Amino acid sequence: MRTIPVCLVGFGNVGKALVRLLEKKQPVLISQFGFSTVVTGIATGSHGMAIDAGGIDIHKAIALVESGKSLSSISNKITPANNLAFIRECPAEVLFENTPVNHHTGQPAADHLKTALDAGMHAITANKGPVVHAYQELTALAEKKKLRFLFESAVMDGAPIFSLFRGPLPAVELKGFHGILNSCTNLLLELMEQGKTFEEAIAYGQSVGITETDPSADIDGWDAAIKVCALSTVLMGIPLTPDEVERTGIRGITAQMIEDGLKNGERWKLVCSAQRQGNSIIAKVSPQRVAATSPLYNINGTSSFVQFEMDTLPGLGILESNPGPETTAYGLLADMINAVRGA
Amino acid sequence: MRTIPVCLVGFGNVGKALVRLLEKKQPVLISQFGFSTVVTGIATGSHGMAIDAGGIDIHKAIALVESGKSLSSISNKITPANNLAFIRECPAEVLFENTPVNHHTGQPAADHLKTALDAGMHAITANKGPVVHAYQELTALAEKKKLRFLFESAVMDGAPIFSLFRGPLPAVELKGFHGILNSCTNLLLELMEQGKTFEEAIAYGQSVGITETDPSADIDGWDAAIKVCALSTVLMGIPLTPDEVERTGIRGITAQMIEDGLKNGERWKLVCSAQRQGNSIIAKVSPQRVAATSPLYNINGTSSFVQFEMDTLPGLGILESNPGPETTAYGLLADMINAVRGA
Repeated sequence: MRTIPVCLVGFGNVGKALVRLLEKKQPVLISQFGFSTVVTGIATGSHGMAIDAGGIDIHKAIALVESGKSLSSISNKITPANNLAFIRECPAEVLFENTPVNHHTGQPAADHLKTALDAGMHAITANKGPVVHAYQELTALAEKKKLRFLFESAVMDGAPIFSLFRGPLPAVELKGFHGILNSCTNLLLELMEQGKTFEEAIAYGQSVGITETDPSADIDGWDAAIKVCALSTVLMGIPLTPDEVERTGIRGITAQMIEDGLKNGERWKLVCSAQRQGNSIIAKVSPQRVAATSPLYNINGTSSFVQFEMDTLPGLGILESNPGPETTAYGLLADMINAVRGA
Repeated sequence: MRTIPVCLVGFGNVGKALVRLLEKKQPVLISQFGFSTVVTGIATGSHGMAIDAGGIDIHKAIALVESGKSLSSISNKITPANNLAFIRECPAEVLFENTPVNHHTGQPAADHLKTALDAGMHAITANKGPVVHAYQELTALAEKKKLRFLFESAVMDGAPIFSLFRGPLPAVELKGFHGILNSCTNLLLELMEQGKTFEEAIAYGQSVGITETDPSADIDGWDAAIKVCALSTVLMGIPLTPDEVERTGIRGITAQMIEDGLKNGERWKLVCSAQRQGNSIIAKVSPQRVAATSPLYNINGTSSFVQFEMDTLPGLGILESNPGPETTAYGLLADMINAVRGA
């Protein structure tokens, strides 16, 4: 039986959930897919790095990081100078990339992934930045190296979107899609329906860890726009950058507007859409009032939904309820299994 | 380039939609999957059969059937005695099976599929009967013959359900599911919301071809129960027969109950559910009042929806809107592509 060494760059909630999931799923990996895994490298943002070809004790690693200590004490290699050096020195066949990313450049994630492919590893990420900014380059490099660049968790966490179009939907022509792809604004709008002001909603979102300290990427619609670009680029074969998306965030939504909507049986939602027009795409992110007849109406809390319009299936919707770091971790695990088994 | 000969047993709306779709998708089959197809046999219920190793003109075949004539005039073989003889004599690599089925036995579909596998063809059907009654036998036979028994369209038409679990969802543990799987009753309940009596709703359903002359299989919940069994048998590995499903149909739903529900912001839906309990399954079909917060609330008309509960993804919902014979035909096409490419 094969043992696949894997390494992680980025060890926040998702990275920690992933190593726990890998541990839990060893019996299934062995029985269903004929391989096991071992974590041979972890690089964190502010708690150092560890490399051990024999396998890192993930419980020790989590305990060290959570108590604010460095991983260097459990490394049996001298700490590399930076993440790129770490990737090159790590004895691994798979890189899981989950570092904070600049959404306007896709960096440093794109460089991490490129370095991994150059070093002979499958490159897997939950970051959407590198999908939008480096999809073609990384995919071409992966093909050349007979490796995979996969990113299922970049849109709707672990819900199968990209793999759905790689596998179960052969020969379809995707004409467009619409949906709710940003959890944060969906929660904020719901909190406003419950009577909170915009500011109170943001404060609450921050207190439960859904809204970031600087919430602008979410509330101005950038996060949603980037997801539209990722779907368009990969599924429709038409590269799109966030600047090309007609984008309106939710700053303009007032308590009065929320109330007026509810009175008419409608809810404000930040709706994403893309529609093919010849060889280009009309892409949009904007707050819209949706009626109870719409599948978008009861997408609550941090759930998300996308409906694809295809020539052969007029409306196929995918709903993800109750996501969390564990669902994102599952997308990474699924990518790894698919990379290893060539699916 | 390979040309794959295919044959059809059953040539109603779905069969006709399928041959049209095959014709339309030839360029994509050739460019993306490296093969084309040719229809070498069609067996109908009451318009005879045709076999032509050189390829049947599907437009002629459709015209003959639609004008009430027999296919024998375009056959270059003497008409076989019955469907089983037809399958054995047809020079094909794929059988598409779409004949009327007895849901209590899965016949004659199961025998058609078995005969096809024995004759060296992939066996593909939109019928759920053989999935419930012969899944293990047909799957084992297909494996032995290095062929495939596939049935994506048996539940939720062409929406990817079975292929989703074969491909994009590796290593998940499916704990249960719930949803709306019967289009006919969903439409009837909606018509009753619009003020029609139960009998008027049925008459309307019959006039638009959604409700059968004898509507009991739908309104007594048998169709829904069989779909629950198909999902349970295939996706959860626990064979289940319709008799084992706790089943209540919609005959008891009165105009008053519909009205009471609407007054409380709730809609009556025929809800299917299954929940794993150790090595067995608690399966149920029953009318339930669902609130606007539920994803079942706005499943309208003939749309359907299922939400899967997994260890790694707490809630993954699949929605199919606006199905028709074309969507069922797409599921058959997708099965064929997956059978040929081994996915």
